[in-house]
Amino acid sequence: MTTQEFQALSPDTLAERLGPIDAIRDRLGDPKDWTMREVGDGNLNLVYIIDGPEGSVIVKQALPYVRLVGESWPLPLRRAFFEYNALKRQDERDPGAVPEIYYFDEDQAIIAMEFLSPHVILRKSLMEGKRHDGLADVLGRFCARTLFRGSDLSMPTAQRKADLALFAGNAELCDITENLVFSDPYFEAEMNRHTPQLEPIVAALRADSDLKIAAQHLKMAFANNAETMLHGDLHTGSVMVTDTETRVIDPEFATYGPMGFDIGMLIANFLMAYYAQPGHAEAEGARANYQNWILSVVEEIWGTFTAEFTHLWRTERTGILYQASLFEDQGDALASEQARIERLAAIWRDCLGFCGIEMHRRTLGLAHIAEYDEIADDAARAACEARGLMLGRALAVGRVNFTAMTEVTDLARRINQEDYL
Amino acid sequence: MTTQEFQALSPDTLAERLGPIDAIRDRLGDPKDWTMREVGDGNLNLVYIIDGPEGSVIVKQALPYVRLVGESWPLPLRRAFFEYNALKRQDERDPGAVPEIYYFDEDQAIIAMEFLSPHVILRKSLMEGKRHDGLADVLGRFCARTLFRGSDLSMPTAQRKADLALFAGNAELCDITENLVFSDPYFEAEMNRHTPQLEPIVAALRADSDLKIAAQHLKMAFANNAETMLHGDLHTGSVMVTDTETRVIDPEFATYGPMGFDIGMLIANFLMAYYAQPGHAEAEGARANYQNWILSVVEEIWGTFTAEFTHLWRTERTGILYQASLFEDQGDALASEQARIERLAAIWRDCLGFCGIEMHRRTLGLAHIAEYDEIADDAARAACEARGLMLGRALAVGRVNFTAMTEVTDLARRINQEDYL
Repeated sequence: MTTQEFQALSPDTLAERLGPIDAIRDRLGDPKDWTMREVGDGNLNLVYIIDGPEGSVIVKQALPYVRLVGESWPLPLRRAFFEYNALKRQDERDPGAVPEIYYFDEDQAIIAMEFLSPHVILRKSLMEGKRHDGLADVLGRFCARTLFRGSDLSMPTAQRKADLALFAGNAELCDITENLVFSDPYFEAEMNRHTPQLEPIVAALRADSDLKIAAQHLKMAFANNAETMLHGDLHTGSVMVTDTETRVIDPEFATYGPMGFDIGMLIANFLMAYYAQPGHAEAEGARANYQNWILSVVEEIWGTFTAEFTHLWRTERTGILYQASLFEDQGDALASEQARIERLAAIWRDCLGFCGIEMHRRTLGLAHIAEYDEIADDAARAACEARGLMLGRALAVGRVNFTAMTEVTDLARRINQEDYL
Repeated sequence: MTTQEFQALSPDTLAERLGPIDAIRDRLGDPKDWTMREVGDGNLNLVYIIDGPEGSVIVKQALPYVRLVGESWPLPLRRAFFEYNALKRQDERDPGAVPEIYYFDEDQAIIAMEFLSPHVILRKSLMEGKRHDGLADVLGRFCARTLFRGSDLSMPTAQRKADLALFAGNAELCDITENLVFSDPYFEAEMNRHTPQLEPIVAALRADSDLKIAAQHLKMAFANNAETMLHGDLHTGSVMVTDTETRVIDPEFATYGPMGFDIGMLIANFLMAYYAQPGHAEAEGARANYQNWILSVVEEIWGTFTAEFTHLWRTERTGILYQASLFEDQGDALASEQARIERLAAIWRDCLGFCGIEMHRRTLGLAHIAEYDEIADDAARAACEARGLMLGRALAVGRVNFTAMTEVTDLARRINQEDYL
């Protein structure tokens, strides 16, 4: 079956290699009746769907390099180990939010897991103008539960420190985030690309000291502030949806980091989807209502996040931080509420900062988003992207001054009326 | 010599067990001529001085429990491993600042190292009213160099992450800090003790929501913000001095944490020594000039720290944070200076917060300081301690509002004129 030496899976070898594994065969049925297709549209890995007489399974295998770039950019197989460990913890902390794992082979970097059907990638759906019931609720709760329950607010601290040490081994994937998100967009790094019409704005951003300093402060927070286990790559391409169901996938960038990171990155991707709508509209203005829906999702994600975080603070605060012995047990529950509000304010500031930086790097760095890329006309694309860049700058630099998510969405709307090119 | 099973060293077995070790025998000469004395006055370990015909050596051995409390409080032997690893790194980052290591036995938790002579513990010297040339310079530089060079400002980040993971294993000693420093002083924890006359102030502090919240925010920063390798226990009992030389010892609490922690704890211990002086004065007012000297040391430590940090920022900023590619390489050195000032401001705020909390826990928690404890008269001791508590509260809660160390020392002087009991 598997050997110590890594071998990439191919459609020809899948049945032979995975057929003997009970946990997979039980889901699929007889391997001789399996059919398989490679569906990996991500940047890093092989992904197969195997259909058998009794069901379907997703098989994800890391490659020893970045798939998008090739063997010239090596990347360790052990990212599958971190993804597996993150999925297990996410499933404990927010049951049902992530795919069920059937099988994990560390040496071969293979995870076999639940095939989500008829789910589609949320990013694609946002391009098509589709709405999803419960989307904001699931995502806001997922952030609150995984971020709270992976932190010293909740976990036994020795266990958190052990997990911190474990995920500190995911250094190469952190390195991608550290460089591609926080630094490369702000100078002429080799792998950057951007729509040519953006050049004047790009030049202005790269000359903007306050912005670059903000990006580096946020980079330091990402690299150092080991508050909780992050998903690490929670954009709308890491979310799968049906009309009524939402699931989160692909936590291979998992690491300990600041609580505001996942939710900030997530919101950034909604805000970019908002700005991209004119490029996908069936007719001018046809997506106006849909744009409003996207902004309502942004507001609801933050609202659900804070409500669930507050609920967990009041009911599951069993860790070493803000102990009840100092507050509730002394009849001073109000102080615990004040502390919660101060913590949420810190998460809020970080969230907006990470949000702004993510909007820049998805427009100026290596990894872009389909919503922008699939706008064929350069000028039309640049007009959308420019708005995202301007909002991103306002959020990253002005993050201490926003007092509600409606201020963010109001500013998003105001910027959407402008032409910056 | 050593076996797998741990055995505490005793004067009877020292020569037999350590005599065969070249690195130790070479320093001391023939083991049959060794004399040894146990000098451990700390809370945790066995410490022997061995004198031989050719020299002297310090032998420190961890015990599997807290020496101060006994076997009822187990503590892992591997703290010696963390101390050894911290000493090695401190010596690389600030050569000469810590004792030279001659030998390390991980299984037996033994470190044999340089015997510092005629050095005395700084805390003792501060009680006696002695001054030390260069004290502030050495301590300020030690903080700047170890904190800067152990961080993502300087180290290759994969190496920093590996060190972060390594020192995350020092969980039991972190647990001591997390509980005894940040939480226990603020409620009636079992191991607390304080001078009875302080009762009204203690009650007020334990009812002070803003203070308790500040302490918990600082606890979160200590536990989560893995900015650099800390000494972890940098009080005046971890500093040895002669008239002209200063060395730092005992980093067994080493962990990754926030840059302001070591320097804040250090300054707190000087400020408490300042308040303790009336209790040790040869006559009323006899220590007034000496008190001024202590405050001048506090100001100089911060001044040296910032000067050295600035120097390192400008000359050794080779890590992933605030890269020259974004600033100097774009002709924007001023932005790098602005970023440095913002970082130092964040360290400053943390420093004052940790300083204030340390002043509380050394008066209200388990571990007190000799400067206070050796004031025999309860009322006289309480008067000194009360001033420290009041300053500590002002620093912890008001840490964002101080703009210079002279504001701190001015406030210290103002409080020293008051009687709070």
